[in-house]
Amino acid sequence: MHRTKVKIVEEALDANNTIARANRDDFERAGVKVVNFMSAPGAGKTALLERVVNDLPGVRVGVLEGDVQGSMDADRLASLHVPVTQLNTDPSFGGECHLDANMVRSALPGLPLDEIDLLVIENVGNLVCPAEFRVGEDARIMVSAITEGEEKPLKYPLMFRACELVLVNKIDLLPHLDFDLDRFLHNLEAVHPGVEHMLVSARTGEGVEGWRDWLARLGSGMQVAV
Amino acid sequence: MHRTKVKIVEEALDANNTIARANRDDFERAGVKVVNFMSAPGAGKTALLERVVNDLPGVRVGVLEGDVQGSMDADRLASLHVPVTQLNTDPSFGGECHLDANMVRSALPGLPLDEIDLLVIENVGNLVCPAEFRVGEDARIMVSAITEGEEKPLKYPLMFRACELVLVNKIDLLPHLDFDLDRFLHNLEAVHPGVEHMLVSARTGEGVEGWRDWLARLGSGMQVAV
Repeated sequence: MHRTKVKIVEEALDANNTIARANRDDFERAGVKVVNFMSAPGAGKTALLERVVNDLPGVRVGVLEGDVQGSMDADRLASLHVPVTQLNTDPSFGGECHLDANMVRSALPGLPLDEIDLLVIENVGNLVCPAEFRVGEDARIMVSAITEGEEKPLKYPLMFRACELVLVNKIDLLPHLDFDLDRFLHNLEAVHPGVEHMLVSARTGEGVEGWRDWLARLGSGMQVAV
Repeated sequence: MHRTKVKIVEEALDANNTIARANRDDFERAGVKVVNFMSAPGAGKTALLERVVNDLPGVRVGVLEGDVQGSMDADRLASLHVPVTQLNTDPSFGGECHLDANMVRSALPGLPLDEIDLLVIENVGNLVCPAEFRVGEDARIMVSAITEGEEKPLKYPLMFRACELVLVNKIDLLPHLDFDLDRFLHNLEAVHPGVEHMLVSARTGEGVEGWRDWLARLGSGMQVAV
Protein backbone atom coordinates (compact mmCIF):
# COMPACT_ATOMS: atom_id res chain seq x y z
CA MET A 1 0.00 0.00 0.00
CA HIS A 2 1.20 3.41 -0.90
CA ARG A 3 0.94 6.17 1.63
CA THR A 4 0.62 9.72 0.52
CA LYS A 5 2.65 11.97 2.70
CA VAL A 6 0.67 14.91 3.91
CA LYS A 7 2.70 17.93 4.79
CA ILE A 8 1.51 19.30 8.08
CA VAL A 9 1.99 22.91 9.09
CA GLU A 10 3.60 22.28 12.43
CA GLU A 11 3.31 25.65 13.96
CA ALA A 12 0.20 27.64 13.25
CA LEU A 13 1.09 31.25 13.81
CA ASP A 14 -1.37 33.87 14.75
CA ALA A 15 -1.17 37.17 12.91
CA ASN A 16 0.72 38.89 15.71
CA ASN A 17 3.46 36.28 15.77
CA THR A 18 3.77 36.39 11.99
CA ILE A 19 4.31 40.14 12.07
CA ALA A 20 6.62 39.89 15.10
CA ARG A 21 8.83 37.53 13.10
CA ALA A 22 8.90 39.96 10.20
CA ASN A 23 9.93 42.72 12.60
CA ARG A 24 12.61 40.49 14.09
CA ASP A 25 13.99 39.73 10.63
CA ASP A 26 14.20 43.44 9.84
CA PHE A 27 15.90 44.20 13.16
CA GLU A 28 18.42 41.39 12.60
CA ARG A 29 19.19 42.55 9.07
CA ALA A 30 19.89 46.01 10.48
CA GLY A 31 22.06 44.55 13.23
CA VAL A 32 19.85 46.06 15.93
CA LYS A 33 19.10 44.28 19.20
CA VAL A 34 15.65 44.97 20.62
CA VAL A 35 14.25 45.08 24.15
CA ASN A 36 10.55 45.03 25.01
CA PHE A 37 10.42 47.03 28.26
CA MET A 38 7.31 46.54 30.38
CA SER A 39 5.80 47.42 33.77
CA ALA A 40 2.76 48.76 35.58
CA PRO A 41 2.13 52.52 35.28
CA GLY A 42 4.64 54.54 37.27
CA ALA A 43 7.05 51.69 38.06
CA GLY A 44 9.96 53.74 36.69
CA LYS A 45 10.72 52.51 33.16
CA THR A 46 11.58 55.96 31.80
CA ALA A 47 13.60 56.92 34.89
CA LEU A 48 15.61 53.70 34.60
CA LEU A 49 16.30 54.44 30.94
CA GLU A 50 17.36 58.01 31.76
CA ARG A 51 19.96 56.53 34.12
CA VAL A 52 21.73 54.46 31.45
CA VAL A 53 21.04 55.56 27.85
CA ASN A 54 24.10 57.79 27.69
CA ASP A 55 26.31 55.39 29.59
CA LEU A 56 26.54 52.38 27.26
CA PRO A 57 30.08 52.40 25.76
CA GLY A 58 29.98 51.64 22.04
CA VAL A 59 26.24 50.98 22.03
CA ARG A 60 24.02 53.54 20.31
CA VAL A 61 20.54 53.43 21.81
CA GLY A 62 17.22 54.40 20.26
CA VAL A 63 13.83 54.36 21.97
CA LEU A 64 10.36 53.58 20.66
CA GLU A 65 8.02 55.07 23.22
CA GLY A 66 4.58 53.50 23.60
CA ASP A 67 1.79 55.43 25.28
CA VAL A 68 -1.95 55.70 25.01
CA GLN A 69 -1.64 59.47 24.59
CA GLY A 70 0.99 62.18 24.74
CA SER A 71 4.77 62.19 24.52
CA MET A 72 5.92 63.10 28.04
CA ASP A 73 8.33 60.19 28.42
CA ALA A 74 9.61 60.61 24.86
CA ASP A 75 10.33 64.28 25.59
CA ARG A 76 12.30 63.32 28.71
CA LEU A 77 14.48 60.91 26.74
CA ALA A 78 14.83 63.19 23.71
CA SER A 79 16.28 65.85 26.03
CA LEU A 80 19.14 63.38 26.63
CA HIS A 81 19.82 63.43 22.85
CA VAL A 82 18.57 59.89 22.35
CA PRO A 83 16.66 59.29 19.10
CA VAL A 84 13.08 58.71 20.23
CA THR A 85 10.02 57.79 18.21
CA GLN A 86 6.57 58.15 19.79
CA LEU A 87 3.92 55.51 19.17
CA ASN A 88 0.48 56.43 20.52
CA THR A 89 -2.22 53.77 20.66
CA ASP A 90 -4.87 56.49 20.75
CA PRO A 91 -6.28 57.47 18.30
CA SER A 92 -4.51 55.39 15.65
CA PHE A 93 -4.83 52.01 17.34
CA GLY A 94 -8.09 52.23 19.27
CA GLY A 95 -6.53 53.38 22.53
CA GLU A 96 -5.08 49.92 23.11
CA CYS A 97 -3.52 49.16 26.51
CA HIS A 98 -0.42 47.52 25.00
CA LEU A 99 1.82 47.49 21.95
CA ASP A 100 1.56 44.68 19.45
CA ALA A 101 3.72 43.61 16.52
CA ASN A 102 1.64 45.48 13.97
CA MET A 103 1.91 48.78 15.81
CA VAL A 104 5.69 48.36 16.02
CA ARG A 105 5.74 47.47 12.31
CA SER A 106 3.85 50.69 11.57
CA ALA A 107 6.59 52.59 13.37
CA LEU A 108 9.46 50.83 11.58
CA PRO A 109 9.85 53.27 8.65
CA GLY A 110 10.42 56.08 11.14
CA LEU A 111 13.09 54.30 13.16
CA PRO A 112 16.75 55.18 12.51
CA LEU A 113 17.86 51.53 12.47
CA ASP A 114 21.09 52.36 10.61
CA GLU A 115 22.16 54.67 13.40
CA ILE A 116 21.52 52.54 16.46
CA ASP A 117 22.66 49.22 17.93
CA LEU A 118 19.96 48.79 20.52
CA LEU A 119 16.27 49.67 20.35
CA VAL A 120 14.35 49.87 23.61
CA ILE A 121 10.60 49.63 23.09
CA GLU A 122 8.96 51.15 26.15
CA ASN A 123 5.56 49.50 26.30
CA VAL A 124 2.32 50.99 27.66
CA GLY A 125 2.19 50.82 31.48
CA ASN A 126 0.15 47.67 32.14
CA LEU A 127 0.85 44.32 33.82
CA VAL A 128 -1.58 42.28 31.73
CA CYS A 129 -1.79 42.61 27.95
CA PRO A 130 1.76 43.72 26.97
CA ALA A 131 2.99 40.26 28.05
CA GLU A 132 0.67 38.63 25.52
CA PHE A 133 2.13 40.22 22.39
CA ARG A 134 5.59 39.60 20.99
CA VAL A 135 6.74 42.59 18.94
CA GLY A 136 9.96 41.18 17.43
CA GLU A 137 12.21 41.70 20.45
CA ASP A 138 15.37 39.85 21.49
CA ALA A 139 14.63 40.20 25.19
CA ARG A 140 11.80 41.24 27.47
CA ILE A 141 12.58 43.17 30.62
CA MET A 142 10.02 44.10 33.23
CA VAL A 143 10.14 46.54 36.11
CA SER A 144 8.36 45.81 39.37
CA ALA A 145 8.39 48.66 41.89
CA ILE A 146 8.42 47.54 45.51
CA THR A 147 5.65 50.09 46.20
CA GLU A 148 3.31 47.75 44.28
CA GLY A 149 3.53 45.01 46.90
CA GLU A 150 5.02 41.53 47.28
CA GLU A 151 2.17 39.61 45.72
CA LYS A 152 2.38 41.04 42.17
CA PRO A 153 4.13 37.97 40.66
CA LEU A 154 1.25 35.80 41.89
CA LYS A 155 -1.42 38.18 40.60
CA TYR A 156 0.14 38.84 37.19
CA PRO A 157 2.09 35.61 36.56
CA LEU A 158 2.16 35.87 32.77
CA MET A 159 4.02 39.18 32.90
CA PHE A 160 6.58 37.90 35.39
CA ARG A 161 7.07 34.74 33.31
CA ALA A 162 7.33 36.54 30.00
CA CYS A 163 10.63 38.24 30.69
CA GLU A 164 14.32 37.48 30.89
CA LEU A 165 15.14 40.11 33.49
CA VAL A 166 13.16 41.63 36.37
CA LEU A 167 14.27 45.04 37.67
CA VAL A 168 13.03 45.46 41.25
CA ASN A 169 12.87 49.25 41.40
CA LYS A 170 12.40 51.93 44.11
CA ILE A 171 14.57 49.90 46.46
CA ASP A 172 15.49 53.20 48.21
CA LEU A 173 11.98 53.20 49.71
CA LEU A 174 12.49 49.86 51.47
CA PRO A 175 12.92 51.45 54.96
CA HIS A 176 9.63 53.32 54.53
CA LEU A 177 7.39 50.45 53.39
CA ASP A 178 5.96 47.27 54.88
CA PHE A 179 7.45 45.44 51.91
CA ASP A 180 8.87 41.97 52.56
CA LEU A 181 11.61 41.61 49.94
CA ASP A 182 12.21 37.93 50.71
CA ARG A 183 8.54 37.19 50.17
CA PHE A 184 8.54 39.07 46.86
CA LEU A 185 11.58 37.10 45.66
CA HIS A 186 9.97 33.87 46.84
CA ASN A 187 6.83 34.72 44.83
CA LEU A 188 8.93 35.65 41.79
CA GLU A 189 10.81 32.34 41.99
CA ALA A 190 7.48 30.51 42.30
CA VAL A 191 6.11 31.86 39.01
CA HIS A 192 9.40 32.10 37.08
CA PRO A 193 12.08 29.84 38.57
CA GLY A 194 15.60 31.05 38.01
CA VAL A 195 14.73 34.34 36.32
CA GLU A 196 17.45 36.96 36.68
CA HIS A 197 16.59 39.95 38.85
CA MET A 198 18.32 43.12 40.03
CA LEU A 199 17.53 45.42 42.94
CA VAL A 200 17.72 49.00 41.68
CA SER A 201 16.74 52.56 42.45
CA ALA A 202 16.33 54.92 39.53
CA ARG A 203 16.12 57.73 42.09
CA THR A 204 19.41 57.16 43.95
CA GLY A 205 21.25 55.19 41.26
CA GLU A 206 21.65 52.16 43.52
CA GLY A 207 22.20 49.04 41.46
CA VAL A 208 21.87 50.73 38.07
CA GLU A 209 25.39 49.70 36.97
CA GLY A 210 24.19 46.08 36.76
CA TRP A 211 21.24 47.11 34.63
CA ARG A 212 23.52 49.22 32.44
CA ASP A 213 25.94 46.32 31.96
CA TRP A 214 23.12 43.94 31.07
CA LEU A 215 21.87 46.34 28.38
CA ALA A 216 25.41 46.98 27.15
CA ARG A 217 26.04 43.25 26.75
CA LEU A 218 22.79 42.83 24.82
CA GLY A 219 23.47 45.88 22.64
CA SER A 220 26.96 44.72 21.78
CA GLY A 221 25.75 41.24 20.90
CA MET A 222 27.48 39.59 23.88
CA GLN A 223 24.25 38.67 25.62
CA VAL A 224 22.75 35.49 24.24
CA ALA A 225 19.47 36.33 22.59
CA VAL A 226 16.48 34.48 23.98
CA MET B 1 -48.65 65.81 1.21
CA HIS B 2 -48.60 63.28 3.94
CA ARG B 3 -45.41 62.63 5.78
CA THR B 4 -44.78 59.29 7.37
CA LYS B 5 -43.10 59.72 10.69
CA VAL B 6 -40.05 57.56 11.01
CA LYS B 7 -39.14 56.64 14.53
CA ILE B 8 -35.46 57.07 15.06
CA VAL B 9 -33.53 55.15 17.66
CA GLU B 10 -31.87 58.09 19.32
CA GLU B 11 -29.23 56.34 21.30
CA ALA B 12 -27.54 53.37 19.74
CA LEU B 13 -26.16 51.30 22.59
CA ASP B 14 -23.26 48.98 22.26
CA ALA B 15 -23.63 45.55 23.80
CA ASN B 16 -21.67 46.47 26.90
CA ASN B 17 -23.87 49.45 27.70
CA THR B 18 -27.02 47.40 27.13
CA ILE B 19 -25.85 44.81 29.64
CA ALA B 20 -24.61 47.48 32.06
CA ARG B 21 -28.12 48.95 32.08
CA ALA B 22 -29.62 45.55 32.79
CA ASN B 23 -27.17 45.16 35.70
CA ARG B 24 -28.07 48.62 36.95
CA ASP B 25 -31.78 47.79 36.84
CA ASP B 26 -31.18 44.63 38.86
CA PHE B 27 -29.06 46.50 41.42
CA GLU B 28 -31.71 49.20 41.77
CA ARG B 29 -34.49 46.65 42.21
CA ALA B 30 -32.46 45.07 45.00
CA GLY B 31 -31.81 48.47 46.57
CA VAL B 32 -28.05 48.04 46.24
CA LYS B 33 -25.69 50.91 45.41
CA VAL B 34 -22.68 49.94 43.36
CA VAL B 35 -19.14 51.30 43.11
CA ASN B 36 -16.69 50.50 40.31
CA PHE B 37 -13.31 50.73 42.07
CA MET B 38 -10.30 51.15 39.78
CA SER B 39 -6.55 51.81 39.85
CA ALA B 40 -3.16 50.71 38.56
CA PRO B 41 -1.74 47.49 40.06
CA GLY B 42 -0.62 47.98 43.64
CA ALA B 43 -2.17 51.41 44.19
CA GLY B 44 -3.92 50.17 47.33
CA LYS B 45 -7.55 49.40 46.45
CA THR B 46 -7.81 46.37 48.73
CA ALA B 47 -5.95 48.08 51.59
CA LEU B 48 -8.31 51.07 51.35
CA LEU B 49 -11.31 48.73 51.48
CA GLU B 50 -9.87 46.89 54.49
CA ARG B 51 -9.76 50.23 56.28
CA VAL B 52 -13.49 50.96 55.95
CA VAL B 53 -15.64 47.90 55.19
CA ASN B 54 -16.43 47.23 58.85
CA ASP B 55 -16.84 50.87 59.73
CA LEU B 56 -19.89 51.94 57.72
CA PRO B 57 -22.76 52.35 60.21
CA GLY B 58 -25.97 50.82 58.87
CA VAL B 59 -24.44 49.99 55.49
CA ARG B 60 -23.85 46.32 54.73
CA VAL B 61 -21.01 45.97 52.21
CA GLY B 62 -20.31 43.21 49.73
CA VAL B 63 -17.36 42.97 47.38
CA LEU B 64 -17.03 41.59 43.87
CA GLU B 65 -13.32 41.03 43.41
CA GLY B 66 -11.93 41.19 39.87
CA ASP B 67 -8.55 39.65 39.08
CA VAL B 68 -6.90 37.96 36.17
CA GLN B 69 -6.03 34.99 38.41
CA GLY B 70 -6.18 33.98 42.04
CA SER B 71 -8.15 35.22 45.02
CA MET B 72 -5.55 36.88 47.26
CA ASP B 73 -7.45 40.16 47.68
CA ALA B 74 -10.76 38.34 48.11
CA ASP B 75 -9.21 36.23 50.88
CA ARG B 76 -7.99 39.38 52.66
CA LEU B 77 -11.48 40.90 52.62
CA ALA B 78 -13.25 37.63 53.47
CA SER B 79 -11.13 37.43 56.62
CA LEU B 80 -12.91 40.64 57.69
CA HIS B 81 -16.24 38.77 57.39
CA VAL B 82 -17.32 40.70 54.32
CA PRO B 83 -19.24 38.67 51.72
CA VAL B 84 -16.83 38.45 48.78
CA THR B 85 -17.31 36.94 45.35
CA GLN B 86 -14.28 36.30 43.15
CA LEU B 87 -14.44 37.00 39.42
CA ASN B 88 -11.38 35.81 37.48
CA THR B 89 -10.95 36.92 33.89
CA ASP B 90 -8.63 33.97 33.27
CA PRO B 91 -9.57 31.38 32.13
CA SER B 92 -13.30 32.13 31.80
CA PHE B 93 -12.99 35.50 30.06
CA GLY B 94 -9.80 35.21 28.00
CA GLY B 95 -7.51 36.70 30.65
CA GLU B 96 -8.99 40.15 30.04
CA CYS B 97 -7.29 43.15 31.66
CA HIS B 98 -10.57 44.67 32.88
CA LEU B 99 -14.09 43.81 33.96
CA ASP B 100 -16.99 44.46 31.63
CA ALA B 101 -20.75 44.43 32.10
CA ASN B 102 -21.15 40.87 30.87
CA MET B 103 -18.60 39.50 33.34
CA VAL B 104 -20.38 41.28 36.18
CA ARG B 105 -23.69 39.92 34.87
CA SER B 106 -22.24 36.40 34.96
CA ALA B 107 -21.41 36.94 38.62
CA LEU B 108 -24.87 38.33 39.55
CA PRO B 109 -26.50 35.01 40.52
CA GLY B 110 -23.77 34.46 43.11
CA LEU B 111 -24.07 37.88 44.72
CA PRO B 112 -26.03 38.18 48.00
CA LEU B 113 -27.90 41.31 46.85
CA ASP B 114 -30.64 40.80 49.48
CA GLU B 115 -28.08 40.98 52.27
CA ILE B 116 -26.09 44.05 51.26
CA ASP B 117 -26.65 47.77 50.70
CA LEU B 118 -23.43 48.56 48.89
CA LEU B 119 -21.49 46.46 46.38
CA VAL B 120 -17.90 47.42 45.70
CA ILE B 121 -16.61 45.98 42.44
CA GLU B 122 -12.83 45.94 42.67
CA ASN B 123 -11.67 46.04 39.07
CA VAL B 124 -8.50 44.52 37.60
CA GLY B 125 -5.44 46.69 38.30
CA ASN B 126 -5.06 48.70 35.08
CA LEU B 127 -5.24 52.40 34.18
CA VAL B 128 -6.48 51.91 30.62
CA CYS B 129 -9.31 49.50 29.77
CA PRO B 130 -11.39 49.40 33.00
CA ALA B 131 -12.35 53.03 32.33
CA GLU B 132 -13.87 52.04 28.98
CA PHE B 133 -16.50 49.65 30.33
CA ARG B 134 -19.51 50.58 32.42
CA VAL B 135 -20.62 47.63 34.53
CA GLY B 136 -23.88 49.01 35.97
CA GLU B 137 -22.35 51.07 38.77
CA ASP B 138 -23.69 54.19 40.52
CA ALA B 139 -20.23 55.69 40.98
CA ARG B 140 -16.69 55.15 39.80
CA ILE B 141 -13.84 55.71 42.21
CA MET B 142 -10.19 55.52 41.27
CA VAL B 143 -7.06 55.33 43.37
CA SER B 144 -3.85 57.03 42.29
CA ALA B 145 -0.82 56.29 44.46
CA ILE B 146 1.66 59.13 44.71
CA THR B 147 4.46 56.61 44.06
CA GLU B 148 3.19 56.46 40.45
CA GLY B 149 4.20 60.06 39.73
CA GLU B 150 2.56 63.42 39.08
CA GLU B 151 1.96 62.96 35.37
CA LYS B 152 -0.46 60.02 35.50
CA PRO B 153 -3.62 62.14 34.89
CA LEU B 154 -2.05 63.41 31.65
CA LYS B 155 -0.93 59.95 30.52
CA TYR B 156 -4.18 58.14 31.36
CA PRO B 157 -6.78 60.91 31.01
CA LEU B 158 -9.76 58.65 30.32
CA MET B 159 -9.34 56.90 33.68
CA PHE B 160 -9.04 60.16 35.60
CA ARG B 161 -12.08 61.57 33.76
CA ALA B 162 -14.21 58.46 34.20
CA CYS B 163 -14.63 58.76 37.94
CA GLU B 164 -16.50 60.77 40.53
CA LEU B 165 -13.85 60.51 43.24
CA VAL B 166 -10.05 60.24 43.16
CA LEU B 167 -8.32 58.80 46.21
CA VAL B 168 -4.71 60.01 46.28
CA ASN B 169 -3.13 57.19 48.26
CA LYS B 170 0.22 56.49 50.00
CA ILE B 171 0.35 60.09 51.15
CA ASP B 172 2.49 58.90 54.11
CA LEU B 173 5.37 58.48 51.65
CA LEU B 174 5.34 62.15 50.62
CA PRO B 175 8.49 63.02 52.64
CA HIS B 176 10.40 60.19 50.94
CA LEU B 177 9.52 60.91 47.30
CA ASP B 178 10.26 63.62 44.74
CA PHE B 179 6.50 63.91 44.25
CA ASP B 180 5.09 67.39 43.63
CA LEU B 181 1.55 67.18 45.03
CA ASP B 182 0.57 70.59 43.65
CA ARG B 183 1.62 69.54 40.17
CA PHE B 184 -0.37 66.30 40.44
CA LEU B 185 -3.48 68.22 41.55
CA HIS B 186 -2.92 70.71 38.74
CA ASN B 187 -2.73 67.84 36.21
CA LEU B 188 -5.84 66.23 37.71
CA GLU B 189 -7.77 69.51 37.44
CA ALA B 190 -6.60 69.87 33.83
CA VAL B 191 -8.10 66.55 32.72
CA HIS B 192 -11.13 66.47 35.05
CA PRO B 193 -12.02 69.96 36.28
CA GLY B 194 -13.72 69.99 39.66
CA VAL B 195 -13.47 66.27 40.38
CA GLU B 196 -13.54 65.47 44.08
CA HIS B 197 -10.32 64.11 45.55
CA MET B 198 -9.05 63.00 48.94
CA LEU B 199 -5.52 62.59 50.27
CA VAL B 200 -5.32 59.27 52.07
CA SER B 201 -2.95 56.66 53.44
CA ALA B 202 -4.26 53.12 53.73
CA ARG B 203 -1.10 52.35 55.72
CA THR B 204 -1.39 54.99 58.46
CA GLY B 205 -5.13 55.65 58.24
CA GLU B 206 -4.60 59.32 57.41
CA GLY B 207 -7.65 60.73 55.64
CA VAL B 208 -9.59 57.47 55.54
CA GLU B 209 -12.51 58.89 57.54
CA GLY B 210 -13.41 61.08 54.54
CA TRP B 211 -13.35 58.07 52.25
CA ARG B 212 -15.41 56.08 54.74
CA ASP B 213 -18.01 58.87 54.98
CA TRP B 214 -18.24 59.16 51.20
CA LEU B 215 -18.94 55.41 50.90
CA ALA B 216 -21.38 55.53 53.82
CA ARG B 217 -23.33 58.34 52.15
CA LEU B 218 -23.49 56.43 48.87
CA GLY B 219 -24.46 53.17 50.61
CA SER B 220 -27.25 54.82 52.59
CA GLY B 221 -28.63 56.55 49.50
CA MET B 222 -27.66 60.03 50.65
CA GLN B 223 -25.04 60.54 47.97
CA VAL B 224 -26.57 61.65 44.70
CA ALA B 225 -26.02 58.92 42.14
CA VAL B 226 -24.18 60.02 39.05
